[in-house]
Amino acid sequence: MRITLAAVLATMISAQPGTAQTAPPAPPAAPAVIEDFRPSSLNQPGQQYPQVNSQGYARFRIVAPEAKAVKATLGLGGRGGTVLTKAPDGAWVGTSEGPLDEGFHYYHLTVDGGTFNDPGTLNFYGSTRWESGIEIPAHDADFYALKDVPHGRVEQILFASPSTGSQRRAFVYTPPGYDKNARERYPVLYLQHGWGEDETAWSNQGHANLIMDNLIAAGKTRPFIIVMTYGMTNDVRPGSPGGLASFDIKPFETVMVNELVPYVDGHFRTLADQRHRAMAGLSMGGFETKLIAPKHLDTFGYIGLLSGGTVSLDDVNATPGYRDKVRLTFVSFGSRELEGGRAMGPPGTPRQDPRANAEALSKAGIKSAFYVSPNTGHEFQTWRRSLLTMAPMLFRD
Amino acid sequence: MRITLAAVLATMISAQPGTAQTAPPAPPAAPAVIEDFRPSSLNQPGQQYPQVNSQGYARFRIVAPEAKAVKATLGLGGRGGTVLTKAPDGAWVGTSEGPLDEGFHYYHLTVDGGTFNDPGTLNFYGSTRWESGIEIPAHDADFYALKDVPHGRVEQILFASPSTGSQRRAFVYTPPGYDKNARERYPVLYLQHGWGEDETAWSNQGHANLIMDNLIAAGKTRPFIIVMTYGMTNDVRPGSPGGLASFDIKPFETVMVNELVPYVDGHFRTLADQRHRAMAGLSMGGFETKLIAPKHLDTFGYIGLLSGGTVSLDDVNATPGYRDKVRLTFVSFGSRELEGGRAMGPPGTPRQDPRANAEALSKAGIKSAFYVSPNTGHEFQTWRRSLLTMAPMLFRD
Repeated sequence: MRITLAAVLATMISAQPGTAQTAPPAPPAAPAVIEDFRPSSLNQPGQQYPQVNSQGYARFRIVAPEAKAVKATLGLGGRGGTVLTKAPDGAWVGTSEGPLDEGFHYYHLTVDGGTFNDPGTLNFYGSTRWESGIEIPAHDADFYALKDVPHGRVEQILFASPSTGSQRRAFVYTPPGYDKNARERYPVLYLQHGWGEDETAWSNQGHANLIMDNLIAAGKTRPFIIVMTYGMTNDVRPGSPGGLASFDIKPFETVMVNELVPYVDGHFRTLADQRHRAMAGLSMGGFETKLIAPKHLDTFGYIGLLSGGTVSLDDVNATPGYRDKVRLTFVSFGSRELEGGRAMGPPGTPRQDPRANAEALSKAGIKSAFYVSPNTGHEFQTWRRSLLTMAPMLFRD
Repeated sequence: MRITLAAVLATMISAQPGTAQTAPPAPPAAPAVIEDFRPSSLNQPGQQYPQVNSQGYARFRIVAPEAKAVKATLGLGGRGGTVLTKAPDGAWVGTSEGPLDEGFHYYHLTVDGGTFNDPGTLNFYGSTRWESGIEIPAHDADFYALKDVPHGRVEQILFASPSTGSQRRAFVYTPPGYDKNARERYPVLYLQHGWGEDETAWSNQGHANLIMDNLIAAGKTRPFIIVMTYGMTNDVRPGSPGGLASFDIKPFETVMVNELVPYVDGHFRTLADQRHRAMAGLSMGGFETKLIAPKHLDTFGYIGLLSGGTVSLDDVNATPGYRDKVRLTFVSFGSRELEGGRAMGPPGTPRQDPRANAEALSKAGIKSAFYVSPNTGHEFQTWRRSLLTMAPMLFRD
């Protein structure tokens, strides 16, 4: 718990460029690109590009007949960039050099030196702006598919936040049946987004609502409420006034614990006690969880860190009450985030082995779960799968 | 009622290019542009451009140092376009030729022949794509401001639609107190978007939820539920397969009357009868209302057409039950949509005078209301004000 959030955020930011890798490194004889390209599922209505094929290649087509240069950049750091070339019809076209990882990727265009979104795609809030998104069909996409099952709702709420002098927004997933079972009360998971994202991410990019609908329809998880709010109270973009260096967890901790939790307990039919309340988050949201939840163990009984750090036995021993009060510590990563099993920590600290940490907790009698998403990195496919894995473990007793 | 929807849609599409006019025509000595530009309220977090000033001018700044030509186009038809010029720092800048109407305007960029969104702004679904938006501060902006009052929710629901073989999305506004007053039941307004928009428009562009929150906080309207869904069941873009020429109201009528209304009555605490159910819509949504509601007068007791046609005494006399069953016919336009008091009708038909029509209804003992939004056109400021005006008139008895 002795990490600072500023250091953590710096790590997250420097870690994010590794996303959307074209992987694995091209073998000596690269397989031929199969010409079964189809429009990405995240395209705007009726748009034919970008396209994806069965191998995970992405193909772009941008109309800008007078442009000098057009590039598609996947991930924050520019790896996986695809330089487009001008076709005879005046459109700029290109195919990624290699297959992309399964799942969701942010990207943007560079057109004659300017940064724009692909007019073909829907936009998703990431890296502090609304960006283009592309979906590489995953072999396990069924678990977040929109199916003919009973659906919960995603409700936008606006709650007064006296501590920040603002009306703040959150999205609340209520499970199917919530409206019918007027006497039933439900546990609540507070689920945070990553750096540069906002309260829209878990629904839009993560399909958290569909994951829950499908799990509940299959009888695999207890129905519960999920609350997703914005995890920032100041402007944390690098170089901005009040940026990373001055980031302080306290203001958001106040919003979460003193304002949002009471609002949700006051306006939804919750089971309003510690053993029916979880906090989890991805990336920066995981670090926020680790900074907030262990200080409020009479509020939160479950802790989930998704690509957002690990919990060691030292952490537990340094935190009063952790051993007795935390009912589950869930930690997950994408396999591509681990090097020799070790995950990146705050700068200047050695990489830790999250699996070894989890096993040490279990061995010491502390309920702990560890999950690695195969062949994915610091991206939403890791976090969709992590939610799928974590949800059934919550609120079991 | 004898109009065809295809003809109506064609009218709407040809009418839409008149939006976002720079108005009024420049007087002989144009006033100096006042240099009090501030970021538009619809900018992405932290973005300084586009900006607006107190006179209603818009100023754009686009970074694309290698581009040959950059233009900002307001409205579908290109009127109000602003050609940007390259500043010494490599950014493209420009100010609209004149002040724009108060309220919300769609726009997009043309960069070297390609159509892109302004990376500075949020995007809004209009003209069948997600477009940039800019907000010219209105003198009456207070009625849709986010204030410290009790807030209702905007809930995303997914409902099964056997007739279209799909899971369809709607947004449902529930008023403040809906969660607390577990025994209270509420009237419902079904509120449709315009051509090229979708079920997100009334919340995102229209601020329907904030308009209701503020009206309810001031005691000016009865709290009621608003349901907003997508008013298309096929691909109606010009030139597309199954486009305008083949558009048929029947499939959406089935979704609305046979699927959505029963779903809402089954899953929300509604007053599930004719006198507590209204249908209204803007532009094409108004024409859809006029095509659907009068055929289902045991379902809908209130009818609202916002820039979406008028109801004449002939219409009433040709519609069995209208005179006895419709509790209010609300019609509105923006002042700039009327020429000599007359609104454009379907092609080949003379312009009608909606005020005269409304007065003829009232004279014949049919409850009718007519509203004109001052100095606005076929745009969302007209429809925000129309909802503000219409809501207190609904469900009064």
